[in-house]
Amino acid sequence: MSKLGSKMGTTTSTIGVFDSGFGGLTVLRALVARLPQARFAFLGDTARLPYGSKSRRTIARYAVQSAQFLVREQGAEFLVIACNTASALALDAIQDAVPVPVLGVIEPGADAARAASRTGDVLVIATGATVESHAYAAACRARGLRALEMACPLLVPLVEEGWTDHPVTAEVIRIYLNELNAEAAAQGMNPDALVLGCTHYPLLRPLIERSVPAGMRVIDSAEAAAEAAALLCNTPRPGDEAPCPILSASFAERVGNDKPPANANPPLAEIRCFATDSVEKFERLGSRFLNQPTGKVELIDLGG
Amino acid sequence: MSKLGSKMGTTTSTIGVFDSGFGGLTVLRALVARLPQARFAFLGDTARLPYGSKSRRTIARYAVQSAQFLVREQGAEFLVIACNTASALALDAIQDAVPVPVLGVIEPGADAARAASRTGDVLVIATGATVESHAYAAACRARGLRALEMACPLLVPLVEEGWTDHPVTAEVIRIYLNELNAEAAAQGMNPDALVLGCTHYPLLRPLIERSVPAGMRVIDSAEAAAEAAALLCNTPRPGDEAPCPILSASFAERVGNDKPPANANPPLAEIRCFATDSVEKFERLGSRFLNQPTGKVELIDLGG
Repeated sequence: MSKLGSKMGTTTSTIGVFDSGFGGLTVLRALVARLPQARFAFLGDTARLPYGSKSRRTIARYAVQSAQFLVREQGAEFLVIACNTASALALDAIQDAVPVPVLGVIEPGADAARAASRTGDVLVIATGATVESHAYAAACRARGLRALEMACPLLVPLVEEGWTDHPVTAEVIRIYLNELNAEAAAQGMNPDALVLGCTHYPLLRPLIERSVPAGMRVIDSAEAAAEAAALLCNTPRPGDEAPCPILSASFAERVGNDKPPANANPPLAEIRCFATDSVEKFERLGSRFLNQPTGKVELIDLGG
Repeated sequence: MSKLGSKMGTTTSTIGVFDSGFGGLTVLRALVARLPQARFAFLGDTARLPYGSKSRRTIARYAVQSAQFLVREQGAEFLVIACNTASALALDAIQDAVPVPVLGVIEPGADAARAASRTGDVLVIATGATVESHAYAAACRARGLRALEMACPLLVPLVEEGWTDHPVTAEVIRIYLNELNAEAAAQGMNPDALVLGCTHYPLLRPLIERSVPAGMRVIDSAEAAAEAAALLCNTPRPGDEAPCPILSASFAERVGNDKPPANANPPLAEIRCFATDSVEKFERLGSRFLNQPTGKVELIDLGG
C-alpha cells in the first residue's frame, strides 16, 4: 500500500484504460474527445486475447494483473475497463485488487439502453463469455428492462480481417440479428434498442444500423462508458468541493477541466499505449480504432 | 535431468500431443487410428489460444511450457506438435527444451505436397502467424517445390461457430481461394495441390474440395503428420534393432505394434486430455474433432 500511495501522490493525473486487445481503443477515443486535459495509459493484453472465449477464473486473473500494472506501474488514479468481457466477469475482482475507482462498460451501456428504450425490451450482442455471464441482462433487469442477449463470435474476427464494409459481414450480421429478433418475438418481446456489447462492434455500426428493424436504436456501450467517465469527472456534487463522487477533488479538477484550450490547434491528449504482445500489429491496427496514431507502443511482460 | 530420467524409465509408453486448442485433436484422431496400442497425452493450451495471431517470442514461450508439461509431468517419450503455428515458430525451441524426439506438422505436410504435385507449384492456407513465418514455403523449397501461402483468419472462427457446412463459410472459402489462385496466376505459377496448414481446416475439407479448381489435390497436414509419426514407429532401420531412427527400440516396439488386436472390438486407445482453460467447452467441442468422446479433460495451470 505504501508503494501505491507514493505513486498516487505525484502530480500525474492518469486515467488507466484496459482491454484484452485493441477494441478498447474505441472507448479511449471517446474518452479523449471528452477529457482532452487528461493523461491516458492504455494497456492491451494482446498476448492473451481474446478473453471472450475464456473462463471467468482465467479472465479475472488476467484482468487483475493488467489493472495492477496500470495502477502500480503507471500511477493510474482511475481505471476504465474498456472490455465488455472483463467488465462482465472481473469487475468485482479488479475493484478488490486496486485502491482506485474502477468503471466498467456494462452499467453505462445498460443506462444508455434504459434512456433509449420506450418498450422496456432490449437486445444485446456480445462475445460468448459476456453473454454467458448474463451481466447485461442483470444490469438491464436492475433498471426495469428485459434484455435478450446473443453471442456473435464471428464479428470480432471479421473486424480484425478488415471486412468492416463487406457483403459477407453484412450477411453474418443479418443472420445473427434475424435469429435474435425471431427469438425475441417467440418470447413475446417487443425490443426497440440494440446494445453493442463489445468494443469491436462500433466499427460495424453502419452495417448493423442497416440490418436492424425500423425504429430500433443502436446503443454503443463504448460511447456510453466514455460519457459516464466524463460525467464523473465533470459533475459537481452538492455540498462537496469534489466534482466527482468517486474521484478525489484534486484528481477530478486536474482531468475534468473540459474548457477548450486557448490555442486554435490544441495538442492531442497525452496517451501512452502498452501491450503484452505484437506491438507492431497494435500500432498498425490500433490507429483505426483510436482514429489517430497510437504512437510507439511499449511491450510489457505480465508473466505467463 | 535426473527427474526426467526417472520418468522415462517407467513402462508407460506415452506419445505427447500438443496444440494451442482443440484443433490438434484431428491429428490425435489420425494417430489413434494408426497407433492403437499407444497411450496418448493431449494438451490444449486453451487459456492462451489462439497462437495464430501472436508473436514468435510469445508462441515459443507458451509452446515450450506446454511441451515440458507433457514430458516432465506425463512422461511423454515422443512429442507430436499438432499445431501448425507452434510447429512453424517454435519447433527448434521445443526441441532444445525437451530431451525426447519432437515431430511437427510442417515437414510431413510438405512431404505430402511433394508426393501429390506434378507441376511443382503448391498453395498453402494457414493462420497469420504460420504464413508470416514462411515455414511451409521454406519446407517446400527444400523439396524443390514453389509454394504460395495465404492467411485465412476467418476459417478457425467459422469452424468454432459450427458453420462447417454453411453458405457463408463456402463464400469465405471461395473469396480466399479466388484471391490465392489469382495471385498464383499473376506470379506465373501453375499450382495443382493445396495444403491445409491449420488443424481446424480438415473440418472444412468438403467445402474446400468443392472450391478448388478441377485437378487440384487437397493435402491435410494433420493426416500427413500422423502418417509420419506412425512410420517412425513402424519402419525398421536397416542393421538396427530399433524400428525407428529417432525413437528408442523399446519405445518404438511398445507403441509401434500395429497388429490388429485379437478381439473383434478392440478397446479404444488410452487417451488423457489436459487443458489450461474451459475444460467443459473442450469436452463438448473436442469430440467433434476427435470423433470419439474426449473423456474427462483435466485442468492444469502452466502459470500466466
